[in-house]
Amino acid sequence: MESQSKFPRKFKDVSLEELRDKVAEFAKVRNWDQYHSPRNLLLALVGEVGELSEIFQWKGEVERGLPNWSSDDKKHLEEEISDVLLYLVQLADVCGLDLGQAALSKIVKNAQKYPLRD
Amino acid sequence: MESQSKFPRKFKDVSLEELRDKVAEFAKVRNWDQYHSPRNLLLALVGEVGELSEIFQWKGEVERGLPNWSSDDKKHLEEEISDVLLYLVQLADVCGLDLGQAALSKIVKNAQKYPLRD
Amino acid sequence: MESQSKFPRKFKDVSLEELRDKVAEFAKVRNWDQYHSPRNLLLALVGEVGELSEIFQWKGEVERGLPNWSSDDKKHLEEEISDVLLYLVQLADVCGLDLGQAALSKIVKNAQKYPLRD
Amino acid sequence: MESQSKFPRKFKDVSLEELRDKVAEFAKVRNWDQYHSPRNLLLALVGEVGELSEIFQWKGEVERGLPNWSSDDKKHLEEEISDVLLYLVQLADVCGLDLGQAALSKIVKNAQKYPLRD
Repeated sequence: MESQSKFPRKFKDVSLEELRDKVAEFAKVRNWDQYHSPRNLLLALVGEVGELSEIFQWKGEVERGLPNWSSDDKKHLEEEISDVLLYLVQLADVCGLDLGQAALSKIVKNAQKYPLRD
Repeated sequence: MESQSKFPRKFKDVSLEELRDKVAEFAKVRNWDQYHSPRNLLLALVGEVGELSEIFQWKGEVERGLPNWSSDDKKHLEEEISDVLLYLVQLADVCGLDLGQAALSKIVKNAQKYPLRD
Repeated sequence: MESQSKFPRKFKDVSLEELRDKVAEFAKVRNWDQYHSPRNLLLALVGEVGELSEIFQWKGEVERGLPNWSSDDKKHLEEEISDVLLYLVQLADVCGLDLGQAALSKIVKNAQKYPLRD
Repeated sequence: MESQSKFPRKFKDVSLEELRDKVAEFAKVRNWDQYHSPRNLLLALVGEVGELSEIFQWKGEVERGLPNWSSDDKKHLEEEISDVLLYLVQLADVCGLDLGQAALSKIVKNAQKYPLRD
């Protein structure tokens, strides 16, 4: 499938499994596994969603592509959106879920829920 | 790197770029792009985080691997966690960010912030 | 102090203590206290914040006073915003906090943090 | 109605209207009204819910009354829970809703939804 995104990819693909392995390794070598219960990770995720929201909170409507944002603001956004992703990956992992397959299945289910009209 | 996750992978890797292309295509063919402003997608993400939290809200502490959950409950969790991921991927896309690269960079930054002790 | 709100009050004041007593009674007579641990209530609160966000998610910017909203939409908003409040009141209660006094103190602290310029 | 809360009240009641007037005055004299659109306040609320969640995120289950928390941790919690409340009050105000009456109505509706069994 050709990409419909307006923003072309510059780098190699990053898989959810790669991220999962990296954050699992990161926690293991720091002995942080003990803190990574499902609900602890879920609340950490909510905390990061809060930080992500703070970036947008006083901006009013924001245009696609963030045309008027400084590079510092964009960098900050990249970091907060990544924090949300990394906790989501960890939450799925400690719950024993295959996040990538789950997401693909959900897209198929959404397509059945919202069929294309002719 | 060998996986440190206790839960082995059964399927091929799913990349963030693959998900991005699929959800961008999904929105495009339904003419939903018009609704996908950054803040609309952010609020939709918050909505899905709420649905994810509802699954865990009355359960007290939950063990890793969800040993006592029904397969229906696990399926529900897979769907809600996927919804969060899919909106996160779309938010990054309309903001013009490369989510995969951003996440890899954040892991490197976290490693510098929390160095390993000898 | 005279109200600076543009929307006049039509009814008698409702105190946080009144709400606290009502929801505590509500839970007690239904034997729901057993489920109302701090983190359970916090996740329930996050769930309701998600439902509140869903109301706003596809609307783009929304004007103050919601001039173009149907009465059904306004009623729905009243219910979701109330759900957030009621869980917040319960969370404060099970944590042993006096929410009203805490809020008054926070306003004083905010005034010190953001002093008026002459 | 006698209070069912285990934590007795020490101070006079604080009403939602009193808080509403104070925060409306606070914003007005600082000329912050211009930033207080419904969706800006909603995202600020989500940000504060995130900060509230961060307090609880690595704690595992937390007992009612927070018996093992330091007074600093309790003070921090009071501040974050207040921030959530104050943005909720402002959100209701700019939407033209009477939050106190809405909350009382929601309790009545909940009682109809979950009737007492004999």
